[in-house]
Amino acid sequence: MTILRKVSLFKKLNSKDFKKIFSIAQVKSFNKGDIVFHKNEIGNNFFIVRSGKIKIFTSIGPNKKKTFAFLEKGDFFGEMSLLGSTTRSASAQAVSDSELLVISRFNFKKLLAKNTDFTLKLLQTLVKRLNNSDREIENMLYHNILGRLAGKIIELAPKTNKPPIVLNIDQNELAECIGTTRVPICHAIKSLKKCGAIDYKRTGIIILNLKQLESIANIKEVGERIIRYGN
Amino acid sequence: MTILRKVSLFKKLNSKDFKKIFSIAQVKSFNKGDIVFHKNEIGNNFFIVRSGKIKIFTSIGPNKKKTFAFLEKGDFFGEMSLLGSTTRSASAQAVSDSELLVISRFNFKKLLAKNTDFTLKLLQTLVKRLNNSDREIENMLYHNILGRLAGKIIELAPKTNKPPIVLNIDQNELAECIGTTRVPICHAIKSLKKCGAIDYKRTGIIILNLKQLESIANIKEVGERIIRYGN
Repeated sequence: MTILRKVSLFKKLNSKDFKKIFSIAQVKSFNKGDIVFHKNEIGNNFFIVRSGKIKIFTSIGPNKKKTFAFLEKGDFFGEMSLLGSTTRSASAQAVSDSELLVISRFNFKKLLAKNTDFTLKLLQTLVKRLNNSDREIENMLYHNILGRLAGKIIELAPKTNKPPIVLNIDQNELAECIGTTRVPICHAIKSLKKCGAIDYKRTGIIILNLKQLESIANIKEVGERIIRYGN
Repeated sequence: MTILRKVSLFKKLNSKDFKKIFSIAQVKSFNKGDIVFHKNEIGNNFFIVRSGKIKIFTSIGPNKKKTFAFLEKGDFFGEMSLLGSTTRSASAQAVSDSELLVISRFNFKKLLAKNTDFTLKLLQTLVKRLNNSDREIENMLYHNILGRLAGKIIELAPKTNKPPIVLNIDQNELAECIGTTRVPICHAIKSLKKCGAIDYKRTGIIILNLKQLESIANIKEVGERIIRYGN
């Protein structure tokens, strides 16, 4: 009960609601690396992250993945195949040891029908994700890989004003967030490092000059001209 | 009342529901070319297409647009800024003379709270749009412009098995659907024409070989190799 109270999805629900949701959910544990579900599987459950970290992604080639989101405590996923087509539109994997609350299709529909707070939160989350996806499409049409990398680092970095801002992520994960491979990301990181916007260590990215990084993220490609930094 | 009944959004609602929705909506007319709202404006209304055709798009450069959707009778839009941030995430424009039902923020929220059929339809639509956007991201990472054009022609074409399948769209509109400019689209159309998949006239695209078009749409780029057709 104490954990459910802290889960942001439920922050507007009262103790009575908590009781209802906890009573219809099962708790399931996943080890780091475990797949929660694969893309194109038939989906019958809705999930809430109780602890740990879940990656939502799709494979777009033999060695290429596209990460759509990292989900943490209080985030939820799996509603797509309960509301749309029955198959999963992406894969979900635990990137650290995780505990999930699992809610069946039947209970999910009951929750939707009975709990308007929950439904509103779900609508708001879908709108937020749709906004993110559409912004990503614009970004892909606008920017070269350097601009997209700069934007992704800002998006993923912890929201703090206290330097240093450290983003614990390796080059492979960063490449997957952008939907490319390691080599072009490695070159782009070197360029951002050379111009002083970031530092890169094995543990991750350190943002040295957020303003500079933002300006690189906001540069639009004009026609076919590619703007290059640091080389 | 008769019109509302035919609107697909409301097909599961009974006459009592129709009465409620019609009584809280205003009818507003737009001429071909009229802007319904601009991106980044503060949004206070939700819209249902009663007749005509509405384009949802964003500008991604001085002469470059990205069209996200064409909406017709029964489709709705404008919920994003009523559920998420208050500003419009894209622009909306009438591409033919259109009539819209306009519902205020206040009445939209009332509708959400009171009408679970409406809310479910809204959830399902958001999931569908999110699926489309995420598929588009995958497509952009996977395909060269020829594959994306082939896929977009299939997506936009009328769903019929009776040949000829005719898609009334000009090169500029097609370019905007893909988020590029006219010149690369013109080249790609020539390639699709040369290999016999489509014919192109001033009035639009005629699909001559749907299977071939599908196979071009499904070819994945392997690494940096770009697969070329017809030249």
